[in-house]
Amino acid sequence: MTADPRFSLNQWTTRHWPLPDLVSGCAAEGVRGVGLWREPVAEYGPTRAAKLVRDAGLAVTSLCRGGFFQREGAIAENRRAIEETAALGAPVLVLVSGGLPDGSRDIDGARARVADALAELAPYAGEHGVRLAIEPLHPMFASDRCVVATLGQALDLAAPHPAAQVGVVIDTYHLWWDPAAYADIARAGREDRLAIFQVADWTTPLPEGVLTGRGMLGDGCVELRRFREAVDATGYDGPIEVEIFNEDLWATPGEKALTLTLSRFAEHVL
Amino acid sequence: MTADPRFSLNQWTTRHWPLPDLVSGCAAEGVRGVGLWREPVAEYGPTRAAKLVRDAGLAVTSLCRGGFFQREGAIAENRRAIEETAALGAPVLVLVSGGLPDGSRDIDGARARVADALAELAPYAGEHGVRLAIEPLHPMFASDRCVVATLGQALDLAAPHPAAQVGVVIDTYHLWWDPAAYADIARAGREDRLAIFQVADWTTPLPEGVLTGRGMLGDGCVELRRFREAVDATGYDGPIEVEIFNEDLWATPGEKALTLTLSRFAEHVL
Repeated sequence: MTADPRFSLNQWTTRHWPLPDLVSGCAAEGVRGVGLWREPVAEYGPTRAAKLVRDAGLAVTSLCRGGFFQREGAIAENRRAIEETAALGAPVLVLVSGGLPDGSRDIDGARARVADALAELAPYAGEHGVRLAIEPLHPMFASDRCVVATLGQALDLAAPHPAAQVGVVIDTYHLWWDPAAYADIARAGREDRLAIFQVADWTTPLPEGVLTGRGMLGDGCVELRRFREAVDATGYDGPIEVEIFNEDLWATPGEKALTLTLSRFAEHVL
Repeated sequence: MTADPRFSLNQWTTRHWPLPDLVSGCAAEGVRGVGLWREPVAEYGPTRAAKLVRDAGLAVTSLCRGGFFQREGAIAENRRAIEETAALGAPVLVLVSGGLPDGSRDIDGARARVADALAELAPYAGEHGVRLAIEPLHPMFASDRCVVATLGQALDLAAPHPAAQVGVVIDTYHLWWDPAAYADIARAGREDRLAIFQVADWTTPLPEGVLTGRGMLGDGCVELRRFREAVDATGYDGPIEVEIFNEDLWATPGEKALTLTLSRFAEHVL
């Protein structure tokens, strides 16, 4: 019962832990927040998931994920994601904006499509009390997952919209390399855009496909505490989600993975 | 005998092609420039290599590479690299600035070390008629190869030094994702920093370790022609080096790899 009140376990960190076990495991450790993903929530049933989490005294800190605006039917799909976020009582829908369409080289066009989609979706999010959070992903994902590659770019995309409707995600894994990272975190604070803060560490060598290469807190080279302090300095006092995609961690039983994550969080983030 | 006069074959594109074969193969195709690497040059003998290339009527467009400023003895090692560049009659020494020292999380410190090393080396380069070219590498290499991750950052590092002593490398593979890429290319032109232009394409999925994932021209999503036009618009009319690290290409016989590269260059870059 010692977890820091801002600690939130993103569900993908313990990807194979069934939702009821994850919820009871978190409650047993005094964890107060979880970040959920649409697929496991849909599998369990959104209404049941919402009740399960609420009954355990946990808050859903974000839902992953909307976005992928290049896909056919993306607007309708994102409307559903907004509705699910509201149904879960989560304040934030994380947006992974999508890469280039197959065979396309038009990165400017893909970025313009993100801006257009935000304009279509922001009011709908507002009506549902949901904040869209644009997540800049590491540039190694720019072609296949997310053409939004820097925090500055995410802030520019958010700028035309009310801050209550569109914010940004700050994730240490994606941003640690950026010479402008700390200046842009301060800007996110000034512009009131900081919707959610996520942490993971950077380790090499990267695995094939690079998606599952995120490191456990403290195993890599990211100045996690410096990031947390910079985020705190903006006035943000919301949840800090741990989101680590890592095969070794996924092969670890959920409770053990959570215990490790909590201890590393205390050691390297707080 | 139809190669574009600006085309230059970077030696690492046909990594296993012995230097004499590479030189005669290039000459047979009318190629006028080659980018060489220190290791194979050292193996062949620098003086012999210089004569071989010169006798075939080829110019050495750059030498790869100096840098790795975090390593012990880096300054002495870079002085030797400058001397070798001069001995080859190459105008440019490409600098891969190095990542974080083992166990370090001090990215600002590593970047400051790059600035300090440049200050030590720039005059020595000038004395030898060699221009140091800071290469920003893709941010996925920031921890283990190069803490210089954007063209803007490279230009900031070059700024304190005479343009004849310190310039930058523009490599499409490393920069294509950057929202500021074209603005920074124009800036490189205005500040007279464009030392060498290199091209490769971006493809996914990335292989384990990501180093050898570069794509043949036209196989990926980079707007190669747009980059070339932006570089041309600065007034740069120097060599365009093709530098592709790719296992499939390395397994292709040198002459066949060169023919393919020339044809793709004509199709996608010119």
